[in-house]
Amino acid sequence: MSAAPAITGVYCAAATPVDPDLAVDLGLFTDHCRHLLENGCDGVALLGTTGEANSFGISERRAILEGVVAGGIAPERLMPGTGCCAIPDTVELTRHALSLGITRVVMLPPFYYKGPSEEGLFAAYSEVIERVADARLRIVLYHIPQMSGVPITLGLMRRLVERYPSTVVGVKDSAGDLANMKAIVDALPGFSVLAGADPLMLPLLQHGGAGCITATSNLIADSLATVFRHFRDPAQAGAVEAAQARINQWRTLSNAYGAQIATIKAMIAARSGAPGWLGVRPPLTPLPEAQLTELSAQLAPLMRKAA
Amino acid sequence: MSAAPAITGVYCAAATPVDPDLAVDLGLFTDHCRHLLENGCDGVALLGTTGEANSFGISERRAILEGVVAGGIAPERLMPGTGCCAIPDTVELTRHALSLGITRVVMLPPFYYKGPSEEGLFAAYSEVIERVADARLRIVLYHIPQMSGVPITLGLMRRLVERYPSTVVGVKDSAGDLANMKAIVDALPGFSVLAGADPLMLPLLQHGGAGCITATSNLIADSLATVFRHFRDPAQAGAVEAAQARINQWRTLSNAYGAQIATIKAMIAARSGAPGWLGVRPPLTPLPEAQLTELSAQLAPLMRKAA
Repeated sequence: MSAAPAITGVYCAAATPVDPDLAVDLGLFTDHCRHLLENGCDGVALLGTTGEANSFGISERRAILEGVVAGGIAPERLMPGTGCCAIPDTVELTRHALSLGITRVVMLPPFYYKGPSEEGLFAAYSEVIERVADARLRIVLYHIPQMSGVPITLGLMRRLVERYPSTVVGVKDSAGDLANMKAIVDALPGFSVLAGADPLMLPLLQHGGAGCITATSNLIADSLATVFRHFRDPAQAGAVEAAQARINQWRTLSNAYGAQIATIKAMIAARSGAPGWLGVRPPLTPLPEAQLTELSAQLAPLMRKAA
Repeated sequence: MSAAPAITGVYCAAATPVDPDLAVDLGLFTDHCRHLLENGCDGVALLGTTGEANSFGISERRAILEGVVAGGIAPERLMPGTGCCAIPDTVELTRHALSLGITRVVMLPPFYYKGPSEEGLFAAYSEVIERVADARLRIVLYHIPQMSGVPITLGLMRRLVERYPSTVVGVKDSAGDLANMKAIVDALPGFSVLAGADPLMLPLLQHGGAGCITATSNLIADSLATVFRHFRDPAQAGAVEAAQARINQWRTLSNAYGAQIATIKAMIAARSGAPGWLGVRPPLTPLPEAQLTELSAQLAPLMRKAA
């Protein structure tokens, strides 16, 4: 493993719009991906937790990826989630991504069984890598124990990096514990540690982190890009601080109703003017009308500041 | 909903044998299903947690069901798990079961997102039922929060039964809390409450429960059948008590190594003489050699007693 992280930058954990029949609105989604790339994102980490990946069937996930690539989004800017509970499904989705020229994926561990051994998780990732058998593949491990129930420990990362140094290149750490992210940076030089929470990108970058994959970038990618590009430049300290403050404001609002994904989508709807963004797939539920109205009122000043 | 539970009896949460390449050994599995039905099981609840369902891909799960039916197991004796994280996958597997003449399924809630609202889970189950749109369908809800992270509350059950009285007919309660099972029996007359843990079947039956779906029935279906058939008969009290004691002994041994599914499979291997039962899919891991030897020594007296 080289000392320079393989994957750096601001990646958007893109939300996925669904129509009233709960089908993916591919046109709206492709527009959104384009908007994100034009507004400062280095790439789009689609089909993650914010993207409701696990609420879409295997064939739908393939169709979403194909649709976005057919819609003109460069495969090298895409970093989809492909980790499922079953190894064959993970292999299928990862091979499918590679077949489209997409070489970087974010991979959940198998997440049905709770309390699996490190040995068992190592075996699961190994099996996927050996079956995919493609030297182009780059995997970002996905640590989000509050959803998956299955943490990716430092011990597991170390073993995977030792065995597959050119394939297992990073981690998305969504657990929100900066100390853990720093420990990974310290332990694995050259490994890409990507913050899953917006407020933690700056302190993580300052400690040698590689960037972020976050939900708020659906809304204010440009501010995240400002932080990422200029955090080392003392002359830009004011701009970076202002950008980070803005990120935190939007982020706080996105968490105001406890239903973060529905709220993010409602905020995209408000910003883009496309009501098609309001839907979510069960088991998520859309924001009730009263909260939409309140959210709208709280968004107005933030959007004026942005304009 | 009628007062007589729709689904009663002893159902085996059947384990699924895999070969050294981790592929399903369909011949061995079909033999196992036949053995279970010949030894007292009323049905085979295949592709559940013990069956490693979520470690098999969608197409594998279809192939397993087709293979067992082609192998001569009557569809009306099968009750597969079909609940996935994504509604379309759950719909596909449920429709596929119905296409084979299998009308009863055990259905996990979507289990990726933690803390979903009752409204969201109701919407998810509703969406599946409406999309499957088959009056023959009978659903057993699957409450196993220690794995799924998503409990099925009494409130949710009540709503589903009210809306779909002929479709949502029962629950498999694997949380191990007898008080909860009794509360469901009391609240929903005619609803089939099936214990997911062997030691709880008898007290649940005595309170009006419908039976069980358990792992130990892979090993001692006949004892569970004895308890189920005779628990009301004072003349059989001794036989019932002896059977329950035997169930508890085997169950205790199956839990001795913390890796219950691998242990159950090793016990099936020992009982049947088929080493093909030793494999498990990652993230599960097989029992190490030393534990296999120890297990074997502990099994010997239990097997002698059974003979």
